[in-house]
Amino acid sequence: MRSASNASEPAPPTRPRPGGRTARIRTQVLDAVTAELAEHGYDALSMDAVAARAGVHRATVYRRWQDVGGLLADLFDAASGQEWHPRDTGSLRGDLAALNHEIQDSFTAEPSLAMALIAASFRSEEAARALRRLWDDRYTQSEVIVERAIRRGELASGVDARALLIAATAPIYHHLVLLRSPRDPHLPDLAATSATLAAGAGAFTR
Amino acid sequence: MRSASNASEPAPPTRPRPGGRTARIRTQVLDAVTAELAEHGYDALSMDAVAARAGVHRATVYRRWQDVGGLLADLFDAASGQEWHPRDTGSLRGDLAALNHEIQDSFTAEPSLAMALIAASFRSEEAARALRRLWDDRYTQSEVIVERAIRRGELASGVDARALLIAATAPIYHHLVLLRSPRDPHLPDLAATSATLAAGAGAFTR
Repeated sequence: MRSASNASEPAPPTRPRPGGRTARIRTQVLDAVTAELAEHGYDALSMDAVAARAGVHRATVYRRWQDVGGLLADLFDAASGQEWHPRDTGSLRGDLAALNHEIQDSFTAEPSLAMALIAASFRSEEAARALRRLWDDRYTQSEVIVERAIRRGELASGVDARALLIAATAPIYHHLVLLRSPRDPHLPDLAATSATLAAGAGAFTR
Repeated sequence: MRSASNASEPAPPTRPRPGGRTARIRTQVLDAVTAELAEHGYDALSMDAVAARAGVHRATVYRRWQDVGGLLADLFDAASGQEWHPRDTGSLRGDLAALNHEIQDSFTAEPSLAMALIAASFRSEEAARALRRLWDDRYTQSEVIVERAIRRGELASGVDARALLIAATAPIYHHLVLLRSPRDPHLPDLAATSATLAAGAGAFTR
């Protein structure tokens, strides 16, 4: 989620960079993909526009990424490799609210790279698979929120962390991505509160 | 949701049909849009393919619907006008589970018109607006689930019906549309149970 949260910044480098030319070209090209997606959306994404923006020879881009699906898959994989940790606010409700605010920010940024990535996933199987890997990665990284709540004694062990996280975050995506509702400043907290109450009532204990 | 639930059937007529030629042409054209979307997806949708499939003159289709966005918007509006009622199973949990099963069926149908409609909404502003109207309509029609639960004494009055319905259904969309997870036969019931527990714990009482 963080990877997509700030479309105006170039994507940070995703792996320890040996500083070689190959790594540098990858960074330039993926930065260009990010910028093109954010500015013009998936429909306008082309290998040639990316190459031009990156200042990299077209032939290099075609040889290494083959097509637009290949570019997107590599962009998502790069995002998956990023260091990302959910905030520790001291409470389950607070942690879920912080996560929801981060998600809402990423989807209501203008332009929103996050929204562009989802749009792309409907048109490229490779992009859809890569996006699924990215979601999986982010939810796995977020499970620490539930582990912390168990350690604090807020939750009993045996809670299905993924189910709780999805219940907490799904309304945000639902409003912004599916319903295309305008940004609601209260929604991240409300959804976090609902999920926390549900967890306390045993809703995610399998 | 129901409108999109059975892609293999032609869309039912959407208004009391006076039986005139204009209404008949609309039905033929929207049936053709549905079939084309379900079989080939949004990317392949074209005015010419729709006209050919509908057996309606191209000029008629262009004059009345202008472009692909116009066709989709009319398709969604037609779906909004459909008679649809959520099942009454005798309990809040049961009603929400039935709703979730219906949603899951519509998104895992092969091909899924529901998924095609969402994909289309990312590429046409007009389609996105029409899809939002359709969602709004379906959620409004589903509020009776909450009203019945209040009448049965399962819920206190003052529950935010829309928030409860979104909490109950959002995980289904999240898994199928965003995470692209495979169909999970237990998910509709689990999500319904979670939302019911959350509601009982006061999660949606404003």
